[in-house]
Amino acid sequence: MKPSHILADGTIAMVDVTGKAATARSARARALVRMNDAAQRALRDASLRKGDAFAAAQIAGIMAAKQTSALIPLTHPLPLTGIDVHLEFLADGLLAIDAQAKTTAQTGVEMEAMVAASISALTIYDMAKSVDREIVIESVRLVAKSGGKSSFDATRESSDV
Amino acid sequence: MKPSHILADGTIAMVDVTGKAATARSARARALVRMNDAAQRALRDASLRKGDAFAAAQIAGIMAAKQTSALIPLTHPLPLTGIDVHLEFLADGLLAIDAQAKTTAQTGVEMEAMVAASISALTIYDMAKSVDREIVIESVRLVAKSGGKSSFDATRESSDV
Amino acid sequence: MKPSHILADGTIAMVDVTGKAATARSARARALVRMNDAAQRALRDASLRKGDAFAAAQIAGIMAAKQTSALIPLTHPLPLTGIDVHLEFLADGLLAIDAQAKTTAQTGVEMEAMVAASISALTIYDMAKSVDREIVIESVRLVAKSGGKSSFDATRESSDV
Amino acid sequence: MKPSHILADGTIAMVDVTGKAATARSARARALVRMNDAAQRALRDASLRKGDAFAAAQIAGIMAAKQTSALIPLTHPLPLTGIDVHLEFLADGLLAIDAQAKTTAQTGVEMEAMVAASISALTIYDMAKSVDREIVIESVRLVAKSGGKSSFDATRESSDV
Amino acid sequence: MKPSHILADGTIAMVDVTGKAATARSARARALVRMNDAAQRALRDASLRKGDAFAAAQIAGIMAAKQTSALIPLTHPLPLTGIDVHLEFLADGLLAIDAQAKTTAQTGVEMEAMVAASISALTIYDMAKSVDREIVIESVRLVAKSGGKSSFDATRESSDV
Amino acid sequence: MKPSHILADGTIAMVDVTGKAATARSARARALVRMNDAAQRALRDASLRKGDAFAAAQIAGIMAAKQTSALIPLTHPLPLTGIDVHLEFLADGLLAIDAQAKTTAQTGVEMEAMVAASISALTIYDMAKSVDREIVIESVRLVAKSGGKSSFDATRESSDV
Repeated sequence: MKPSHILADGTIAMVDVTGKAATARSARARALVRMNDAAQRALRDASLRKGDAFAAAQIAGIMAAKQTSALIPLTHPLPLTGIDVHLEFLADGLLAIDAQAKTTAQTGVEMEAMVAASISALTIYDMAKSVDREIVIESVRLVAKSGGKSSFDATRESSDV
Repeated sequence: MKPSHILADGTIAMVDVTGKAATARSARARALVRMNDAAQRALRDASLRKGDAFAAAQIAGIMAAKQTSALIPLTHPLPLTGIDVHLEFLADGLLAIDAQAKTTAQTGVEMEAMVAASISALTIYDMAKSVDREIVIESVRLVAKSGGKSSFDATRESSDV
Repeated sequence: MKPSHILADGTIAMVDVTGKAATARSARARALVRMNDAAQRALRDASLRKGDAFAAAQIAGIMAAKQTSALIPLTHPLPLTGIDVHLEFLADGLLAIDAQAKTTAQTGVEMEAMVAASISALTIYDMAKSVDREIVIESVRLVAKSGGKSSFDATRESSDV
Repeated sequence: MKPSHILADGTIAMVDVTGKAATARSARARALVRMNDAAQRALRDASLRKGDAFAAAQIAGIMAAKQTSALIPLTHPLPLTGIDVHLEFLADGLLAIDAQAKTTAQTGVEMEAMVAASISALTIYDMAKSVDREIVIESVRLVAKSGGKSSFDATRESSDV
Repeated sequence: MKPSHILADGTIAMVDVTGKAATARSARARALVRMNDAAQRALRDASLRKGDAFAAAQIAGIMAAKQTSALIPLTHPLPLTGIDVHLEFLADGLLAIDAQAKTTAQTGVEMEAMVAASISALTIYDMAKSVDREIVIESVRLVAKSGGKSSFDATRESSDV
Repeated sequence: MKPSHILADGTIAMVDVTGKAATARSARARALVRMNDAAQRALRDASLRKGDAFAAAQIAGIMAAKQTSALIPLTHPLPLTGIDVHLEFLADGLLAIDAQAKTTAQTGVEMEAMVAASISALTIYDMAKSVDREIVIESVRLVAKSGGKSSFDATRESSDV
C-alpha cells in the first residue's frame, strides 16, 4: 500500500486517472460536534421553529462539496450527481452531521463527503461559538464508500461511528 | 449569552459590524489527525526528504483561510494580515496541525483559523487515505483568541489539546 | 452625467477610488418573483414548517453578495460589514426578496445588494421551477442607498416597488 | 407536480441524478433592462464605437454561467458545452439580454442560462447606474428549453417575451 | 536580502503585516505576446470593428487581479482601489499588455498587476491559438512600483521593456 | 484558419462543442523564469532542504489549472483527469516549469497547461521578488499537445524551448 499522491522521491502528484472507466461511486462521512446545553438549545430551538440554523449548515456543506477540487490540492474535479447533508442530535450535546456524496466518475467522492461534513460542522461551530466557547468538532471520518477498488461500510463493522 | 447569528424568531443573520472599530485580532486553532504507522511513515518520509506532503497541507490551509467568507455563510470578508499553518507529529500516529490567523478588523478570525486547520487536515487525509483507510480527523478546536470582547488561551487553562 | 465605467473612447475601466475616504454606506435592493399558487404553496409550506426553502434562498443571497467583485467585472472588492436578505410574500403569487448591504468603504454597495437579491431570486426560481414552469423574476431594482455623493430612498418617493 | 428540491418534511435536497443518462440539453433565458435615453446612448455609443460595454456584459454572463453550481445551492456541476450571450436594444430604453446554455448531462441547464442573463444584466446595470439611477432589471425569465422530460418554447406559444 | 516567504529552515510562510500601516501603493506590469500576421490581423480586425477581443482580454485581466490572493498562495487579500489593463500592438506581431494595480494597504500590489497581465495574455493566447499555433507569451515582468520600502520605475532606467 | 472565438462580425463566442465526441487529450506547457544568483540560491536551498518553495509553486499551478474555466473567459469547464507540474533549474538563473494536463473531453487542455505553468511561475516570482527585483517570466509557451484535430510536439521539431 502506497500513498497515492506521494511519489517515490517525496514529491507529490495528482493521480492520473485518464485511462480509468467512469463508474458509480458514493461515500458517506460523519462529523460530530460537541457543545453545551445552551448551544444545543439555541440551535435546536431555531431549527425546530424555523429550520434556519440547520438549513444554513446543510447548504454550506452542499456548496462546499461542490468546491472540493478547489480546496483540496490533489483532488480531481468531479461531476457530483448527488450530495446530501443531514444534521441530528445523537445525544445531549452531541450533534451528528452526515454527508453523502455520489458521482459517476473515474475516482471516488470520499473527499467531497468529508469536505461537506467538515464545512457543515464549521458552520454550526460559527453559529454556536458565541454561546459555547468550548464547542469542538470532535471527529470527522469516513463512514462508508462504494464503487472503485475498495468498498467498505464502517457501520457494519462497528457501531462506533 | 445568545447565538450571534440566530435571531429571536429563529431566522439567521450576519452580524452587522458597521459601527465597530477595527482592532488587532488573532486566533489559533488545532486539528488532530490520527493515522496508522504506515501512513505516518509515508507522510514523514515524504516530508523529511522533500517537504512536499506537509507543504501541500500547509498551503491548502493557507489558501482555504483566505476563502473563509466564501465557505462559511455568515462570516464577514476580512483582510487577513497573517496566516500560518504548522504540522508536527505529537506522538506516534497523532499529527497536530496548528493554524494561526491575524487581522485588523471589526470582527474576529476564529473561523479563518478553524477553516485553515480543517482543510489542512483534510489534505493530509486525502494523501494518506490510500495507506490507512481508518485515518480520522480526531478533533478541530479553537486553542486561543485575542482581540475583541473575549480573549482566552486554552493552552494556559489546560494541557488537554 | 457620464457612465462611470465607460471612457470617452468607448473603452471600459474600473473607477480609481484610491484617493477617496472610506465612509459608511448602505444599499437596499428588491427582487420580485411571480409564481402560481402551487409554487407558492410549496415554498410557503416548506418555509412555515421548516424554513429551509427561504433559508436556502437567504443564504445563497448572502453568499453571492460576498462574491460580487468576482461576478461583476468593474466592481471593487469591498469589506462588507453587513448583509441581510429577507423573503416575504407581498400578495398571492408575488414574493418579495429584500437585500440590504452595508460597508465602510470608498465606494458604494449597490451592486452587492442587487447581486444578493438576484441570486436569492434565482434560488427560489430553481426550487419552484418544477412546480411552475412560468415562474418569472419580475424585477430587480435598487430601493435605497445612503452614503457617497447621492443618497435616495425610492420608498419615500413612491409606493411603487 | 412537486418542487424537486423540497422534501415532504420541508427540508431541502439536491436531486439525485446518479442513475439518469446524460442527454443533450439546452436552455434560453432572457433578461430585460429598462433605462433612460442618456444611459442607452452611453451604452450604445460605447458599444458601437468599441464594443466594450456590451462585451463586458457578455463576458460577465458567460463567466457567471460557468459558476452556476457555486452560486445556486442545489444545482449540479455541469460540463457546459456552449454558452452564448447576446445583447440588443429591442426598443428605446429596453435592452434585451439573451443567454443560451448547452450541455450533455443528466440534468438541464435552465439555471445556467438564467444566471448568465441575470449577471449580464447586472453588469449593464453597474455600468449605467451613474447615468440613470432609475435603471431597473425588468424581468428575467426562461424562454425555451430542450432535452429532459419537458421541452417548451415560450416564443412559439406567445410573442410576449 | 532574504526571500520574504521562505524561513530559515526552508519552510514557507505568509509575511505577517499586522503591525504595518496601510499606505497608497501601485504597481505596473507588462506582458508581451508574440504572434504571426494572421493572428494579429484577426485580433486587430475584431478589436477595431467591435472591440470584443481586446475587451475580453482586458476584462479577464481585471477579474483575475481581484482573484490574486486565491491564486498565489502566500499573497494577502487586498482591497484593490483600481485596476486597469490596456492592450496595444507595439510592432508587427508584438502585443503589449499593460496592467496597473492600486491599493491602500499594508503590502504591495505587484502580484495583482502581474496576475492581470498574465491572465490577459493567456486570454489573447486562447483566442489566437487556432490561427497561430506558435503564439507565445514572450515575457511578463514588473515595470514599476511605488509605495512601500522600495519604489522603482524600469521605464526610467531603461527603454528595454 | 480562423480564430475560433471571434465571429465574422467581431463579436466573441465560446465554441459550441455539444456535438463533438469526448476523446483523450493532453497538453504540455513550459514557463521559464530568469532570476539572479541570490534568488536561485534561496529557492534551491529551500527546495533542497525542505521542498517547500517548489512544492508551493507546484501546488499553486495544479490548483490554478483546475480554475482555468473561471479565469479564461471562453474556455469550457473540463473534467481534468491529470495535472502535473515540475520545476527544475535548466541553467544558472533559468528555472523551467513544465506543466502537463490531461482529460477526456470534447475540447483540448492547452489552456489548463498554460495556466498551470503561468501561475506556478508567478508563485516563484512572488517568493523570489524580494531577493531579485529584476526577476522576469521569460516565456510561457505550449510545448506539445495530443488528441483533437491537430497534434504537435515542439520538442521534436526543435530543441529551442
